[in-house]
Amino acid sequence: MFDPKSPPQNLAEMRALLDALPDGDPATAAQAAEREPQLTKPAGALGRLEALSAWLATWQGRHPPQIRRPRVVVFAGSHGVCEEGVSAFPSEVNGQMVQNFLNGGAAINQICSAMDAELRVMEVALEIPTANFTKAPAMDEEDCAEAMSFGMSAVEPGLDLICVGEMGIGNTTAAAAICHGLYGEAAELWTGPGTGVEGAALSRKIRVVGDAVMLHKHLFRDGLDVLRCLGGREIAAIAGAMIAARYLRVPVVIDGYVAGAAAAVLEATRPGSLDHCIVAHNSAEPGHTALLTRLNKTPLIDFGMRLGEASGAALVIGMLRAAAECHAGMATFAEAAVAGKSG
Amino acid sequence: MFDPKSPPQNLAEMRALLDALPDGDPATAAQAAEREPQLTKPAGALGRLEALSAWLATWQGRHPPQIRRPRVVVFAGSHGVCEEGVSAFPSEVNGQMVQNFLNGGAAINQICSAMDAELRVMEVALEIPTANFTKAPAMDEEDCAEAMSFGMSAVEPGLDLICVGEMGIGNTTAAAAICHGLYGEAAELWTGPGTGVEGAALSRKIRVVGDAVMLHKHLFRDGLDVLRCLGGREIAAIAGAMIAARYLRVPVVIDGYVAGAAAAVLEATRPGSLDHCIVAHNSAEPGHTALLTRLNKTPLIDFGMRLGEASGAALVIGMLRAAAECHAGMATFAEAAVAGKSG
Repeated sequence: MFDPKSPPQNLAEMRALLDALPDGDPATAAQAAEREPQLTKPAGALGRLEALSAWLATWQGRHPPQIRRPRVVVFAGSHGVCEEGVSAFPSEVNGQMVQNFLNGGAAINQICSAMDAELRVMEVALEIPTANFTKAPAMDEEDCAEAMSFGMSAVEPGLDLICVGEMGIGNTTAAAAICHGLYGEAAELWTGPGTGVEGAALSRKIRVVGDAVMLHKHLFRDGLDVLRCLGGREIAAIAGAMIAARYLRVPVVIDGYVAGAAAAVLEATRPGSLDHCIVAHNSAEPGHTALLTRLNKTPLIDFGMRLGEASGAALVIGMLRAAAECHAGMATFAEAAVAGKSG
Repeated sequence: MFDPKSPPQNLAEMRALLDALPDGDPATAAQAAEREPQLTKPAGALGRLEALSAWLATWQGRHPPQIRRPRVVVFAGSHGVCEEGVSAFPSEVNGQMVQNFLNGGAAINQICSAMDAELRVMEVALEIPTANFTKAPAMDEEDCAEAMSFGMSAVEPGLDLICVGEMGIGNTTAAAAICHGLYGEAAELWTGPGTGVEGAALSRKIRVVGDAVMLHKHLFRDGLDVLRCLGGREIAAIAGAMIAARYLRVPVVIDGYVAGAAAAVLEATRPGSLDHCIVAHNSAEPGHTALLTRLNKTPLIDFGMRLGEASGAALVIGMLRAAAECHAGMATFAEAAVAGKSG
């Protein structure tokens, strides 16, 4: 149903794709479940690694699973809401950081190198900020669909894994507004320091988030409406990449709070949309923990990171590779002539 | 003071080494602290990765730190206490698992491959079980010192990291007895299923642990006495490796409950002995969480693993490498011409 060569042109087509998301492969899931207890270890002794290899087999549709072609994608977007003074850094940092990625000087460059993963940096109309969503919807329908389609182009068949993250000054404000729009509660719950705002600036950020939801909520029929009104283009692109990955059998690792907001949009629109996704880490951004509870996702690590750039997602690639290789490469009790549990 | 070519011959010499453990390098620690805030990210945004790179710089005595030569060591030992029926697997599994390691069929082989780490399997007199510590001390002083010295030989200058773990049927009983001997409390707190004992066998294991401490506690002057009476040779070897690593400037990653018991012996003997060590993971073995609280160590991950084999320790190598590479390889704000935080 999803054809990478002719991606959806509008949000109605995106909704149709979400309504028809494919399930994981029951055959490869069964193969993984059959092999795991034969491996030379006490049953269950690899803990979460066992669940991860089963998840990879299910969503790669391959047994044994493997992590030979992992891709890390950093979507970069620019936010009109920065006019409101919600960030500790100026918007000009967007272009400077993209240049830093291209020069190999950012954290994500080093992490991808350490993890032997491909890095793609994708600017989502970076020179054109979204509208200031305190005054108008951040994107119109066409703009939002275009950003999602662009995100879809980050995925291709044959990838073993995709880690999705972002960079965009002001985008924790957008993420907070999306979460507040989706889940309600107090704006304070969802709004944190981001790159480091505090005091009066943090109070202003909270007010911006609350006011924006008040302004647009009459337009919210589903998660995609929330995305369009409050999101950034990089957030829409992440949502698009997640949809494409589901169709192309590429398991997804979600980075931090902003990528999590993109995920929340899909889950709100169509529950079960994130079954092919795991969450890498619990970010230091305070709203992230509340978000993960809503998404019913348990992060792999909790390192107090709050950088974005897909840094947390890329950091767990090695452990996922180890999970796949344990499942694929370990000897069985029969092969190794190791005695099993007695009694 | 420590000379790898003439390691200690007795426990008195081990105690002398523990009394004179070198500190971390204040110069490289200062260099790390000076560089970190200059890197192109909001201050503190890499969370625990920043603490890890500082720790590596301090204990490698090198700036910037690096992880190019990590070694994983699995010490294997055999336990007389298995006569008491404390394990779900028979002791013959010891030799079978060593063969499995050598054939590349175990979990640790796959994890080391995924992490690009060297693996060493070191049998600590595997064919000679320790004495059944329900009847006599597990080792005499000479035997214990010899096992510790053997463990020291696993470390050499120029390694960037050493991950220490073990394999030995019955050794969670030894670890539980050591913890009960060091910290008191109820034997139940420290005694868990290990490879999978339950019901009457678990009750027996708890009784064995409690009785063993009662039998030997008049001999406990310090942690090394507890090690000698209740430990296995692989546990003594891990303790020796940790001491040697401190002198040879090789940071240590501690695996699970059994390796943690070896660490606890050192900390009880000389507080501060573990400053060059981190704990990889919180094991599913119930006593491990209580042990980590006593050691004041926060594990990097909590995957519900309970395999041993240094599997949890090896699993975090990639993240440590990423920490070192972020610190070493990221551009500074000045180099990248990225604007800093405003206001």
